[in-house]
Amino acid sequence: MKPLGPIPAGFGAVDGELAVGGFTASQLVKRAGGTPLFVYSAEMMRQRMARLRAAMPPRLHVHYAMKANPYRPVLELMAGLADGLDIASGGELSLALEAGVDPARISFAGPGKRDEELQAAITHGVTLNIESAGEARRALRIADALSLTPRFAIRVNPEFELRGSGMKMGGGAKPFGVDADRVPALAREAIAAGAEWRGLHIFSGSQALDAEAIIETQANVLTLAQRLAEEIGAPLPLLNMGGGFGIPYFHGDQPLDIERIGAALNERFETLAGAFSQTDFAIELGRYLVGEAGVYLARIVDRKDSHGTTYLVTDGGLHHQLAASGNFGTVVRRNYPAAIATRFDAEPVEEANIVGCLCTPLDRLADQALVPAAGEGDLVAIFCAGAYGASASPSAFLGQGPAREMLV
Amino acid sequence: MKPLGPIPAGFGAVDGELAVGGFTASQLVKRAGGTPLFVYSAEMMRQRMARLRAAMPPRLHVHYAMKANPYRPVLELMAGLADGLDIASGGELSLALEAGVDPARISFAGPGKRDEELQAAITHGVTLNIESAGEARRALRIADALSLTPRFAIRVNPEFELRGSGMKMGGGAKPFGVDADRVPALAREAIAAGAEWRGLHIFSGSQALDAEAIIETQANVLTLAQRLAEEIGAPLPLLNMGGGFGIPYFHGDQPLDIERIGAALNERFETLAGAFSQTDFAIELGRYLVGEAGVYLARIVDRKDSHGTTYLVTDGGLHHQLAASGNFGTVVRRNYPAAIATRFDAEPVEEANIVGCLCTPLDRLADQALVPAAGEGDLVAIFCAGAYGASASPSAFLGQGPAREMLV
Repeated sequence: MKPLGPIPAGFGAVDGELAVGGFTASQLVKRAGGTPLFVYSAEMMRQRMARLRAAMPPRLHVHYAMKANPYRPVLELMAGLADGLDIASGGELSLALEAGVDPARISFAGPGKRDEELQAAITHGVTLNIESAGEARRALRIADALSLTPRFAIRVNPEFELRGSGMKMGGGAKPFGVDADRVPALAREAIAAGAEWRGLHIFSGSQALDAEAIIETQANVLTLAQRLAEEIGAPLPLLNMGGGFGIPYFHGDQPLDIERIGAALNERFETLAGAFSQTDFAIELGRYLVGEAGVYLARIVDRKDSHGTTYLVTDGGLHHQLAASGNFGTVVRRNYPAAIATRFDAEPVEEANIVGCLCTPLDRLADQALVPAAGEGDLVAIFCAGAYGASASPSAFLGQGPAREMLV
Repeated sequence: MKPLGPIPAGFGAVDGELAVGGFTASQLVKRAGGTPLFVYSAEMMRQRMARLRAAMPPRLHVHYAMKANPYRPVLELMAGLADGLDIASGGELSLALEAGVDPARISFAGPGKRDEELQAAITHGVTLNIESAGEARRALRIADALSLTPRFAIRVNPEFELRGSGMKMGGGAKPFGVDADRVPALAREAIAAGAEWRGLHIFSGSQALDAEAIIETQANVLTLAQRLAEEIGAPLPLLNMGGGFGIPYFHGDQPLDIERIGAALNERFETLAGAFSQTDFAIELGRYLVGEAGVYLARIVDRKDSHGTTYLVTDGGLHHQLAASGNFGTVVRRNYPAAIATRFDAEPVEEANIVGCLCTPLDRLADQALVPAAGEGDLVAIFCAGAYGASASPSAFLGQGPAREMLV
C-alpha cells in the first residue's frame, strides 16, 4: 500500500458521491457530455482569494499567473478577482485579451520572448519583465520602430533561492532574469533609452510549503529590491515579489500557513524604507489560487487482475495529468490525492492500481492505493488538478485528444 | 561539460549548415514558415525500412506503430512501406482511416478501450488486441449488437520481460494484456462466442539496444506462442511478436545490430513447429522506423550569461520535446544529440546550456554542451526527434502551441 495525498478541504459527498458546487460527479459528467473531465470550483477559488486577501497586507496586490490554468472561464474569474495578470507567452497574451483583460494590468515574463511577442506586448502596453540585456535591446528597437514607449520591469536573478521550493528559480547561474549585480546598469540604460520604468520582478522559486522559507525569501526580496532601487537611482513603481506559495500534493504535506506569512509581511510593510513610499507591491500566484479547486474525473473502463494485482483502467491518463503520473519534474513518483468519486463515502477495502488508458507503463494515476471496491463505470477523481493539468499535459499523445473542462 | 548523444548517420552539412534531404536548415525553416519545426526525412525512413527488410526473414511482416509519429505525411509514407498498422486509440483509427489505410491491415492495442472505440474498430473490421476478459465481453456484446463478427487477437502478458528495455511491458503484474496462463481459456471462449480468431500479440518491452536481449525475447515469444496455440487448440493466423528495437539517444549508446537479430530469427524460422505452418509473423516498430529520421529545429532568440554560464535560449522547448528535456520516464537527465544547425561543421569551442523559452527550469534541451559559438538567430537542432516528439509533448503549455512539421 502506498498512501494517497491529502484531499483538499471543501470537497464533500452528496448521495455518496464526490460533489463539486453541489453537483455529484455523475451529474457533472453528464452535464459536460462525458469523461475525462476537469471540474473547477469557482467558489473554492473565490474562498481561496478571500482568505489570502484577509491574511495579506491591504497594500499587497495579488497577480494571477495564468500559466497555471488558462481555461477561459477560469481566466475570466481570476482576472476579476486578482489585481493583475502575469503571462508567459504571446499565446497567453492573446487569450488574456480575448478574455477582456485590460493590458495595462498584464506583465509578461519568459526567457525566450520572440520579436513578434515583444511587438504584441509593446503595442498593447503590457509590462515586459525584461530577462536579459539582449532582450532589452530588442524590445527598445521594436518599440522605436513602432514609435511607442515600452514598459519595462527587470526580472532579477537573485543570489538567494527559495528554500524547499519545488522549482528553484534563483541562486547561481539561471536562464531566468538578469543577474542582480547587472540590474542597476541595465535599468539606467533602459530608462535613459526612453523606456517607462515599471520596477522589478524577483521570482526565486515555486511550490514551497514552509511559511518560514517564504518569509525569509520575501525579506531577502525587499532587501535586494531596496539596494537595487538605490543603485538604479529611481524609485520602483512596482515590485513583483514573486510567488512560491505551494499546495499539498503528497501524503504528509502540510498546507502553507499564509496567515503567518501575512503577519510577517504586515510587519515588514510597517517599517518600509523611503525608497518604497510610492511602490506597488505584488505577489504572483498561479497554482496556489486554483490548484486545489480542480478535480479530474475519469471513468473506469476495465477492472482487471494480473498476478493478484488489481488494476482499475480509466479512460483518462497522463495525456491530461502528466504531473500526477509522476512524469513532470519528479524523481520519485508519489500519489496525488485520489478517490473513487462514485463511492466517495464508502470504506476503502482493497488495494488497487489506478492507471490511464495509454499503452505505456508511465501512465499511472495512483499506485497501490487503498480504495473502496470499484469497477467498470465508476468514476475516479484525481485532486489538485486545477493547475498544470489540462494545459501542461501531452493531450495529443496516442491520438487521445484533450479532456473536457468545466467551471462550476 | 556533459556529452551529447550520437547524431544519427545520414545527416550532413551543406554550405556549413545541417541539411536534410538536400536542403539546409535555414531553407527548411523558410519553406515551413518559421520555427520551431520538426523535419522528417522520407529517404531516411525508406532506407531504414529497406535495411530492416534485408536483415529480417522474408516471412516476417513489419507493422508500423503509429503512436511514434502520427503526422499525416509520415503516416501515409509508413503505411505504404509497412505491412500493417498498429493503433492505440479511436483517435488514431480516425487518423489512419483519413490517411486511406485499409482497416483490415490495422490492429488496435490499448488497455483502456472505450465502448465507442471498440464499436468503431469492430465496424471497420480492425483486429482488436484484447487486453482482458472484461474487454473481450464488452467487444462481443458490441459486435453482437452490430451483428458483426469481431476480429480478436489476445494480447499476452508474458512471464518474461525484455532485458535492458527502456519500457518494460511484460514480467509480473501489468495493466497490459492477459496473464499468459489465462489466455487459452479466454481464447477458446472468444472463439466459441463467434469471434474471428486472429492470434496473439506478445509485447514485452521497448527501446532495447542489446541484440542478444531481443533475440532471447523473440525465442521466448515463439516458445510461449507455440505452447498457447497448443493449449488453445487452434492455429495462430497471426503472431505479433512485439517490438523493442531501440535507437541510440545518449552518449555511449550503440546502434542495435539488426542483422544479428535477423540471422537468429531466420534460423528459428527454419525449424518452426507445425503449429506455425499457417502463421503470419509480425514485429511492431515505431520509434525504430522513424525516430532517427527526424530533427527538431528551434531558433536562438537570446544568448545570455549568468554568473559565467552561457545560455542559448531558443523559441522551442519541452512543449515539443518533453522526452529530450528529460521529463518523460527519465530518472537521470542526459543530453539527446544536439547541434548548432547553422554552424554544423564549425569547431565546438564553448560550453553552453541550450534551453527552451518556457518559464520553468525543467525546460532544458542540452546541458553543458560543447558547441560552436552561436547567438541570436542561429538554429539549434535536436536529433532523434522523429518519434514521440510533437505528439508526445504538452504543446499548449504556457500558451505556446504546436510546432510546425514537415516531411522532406
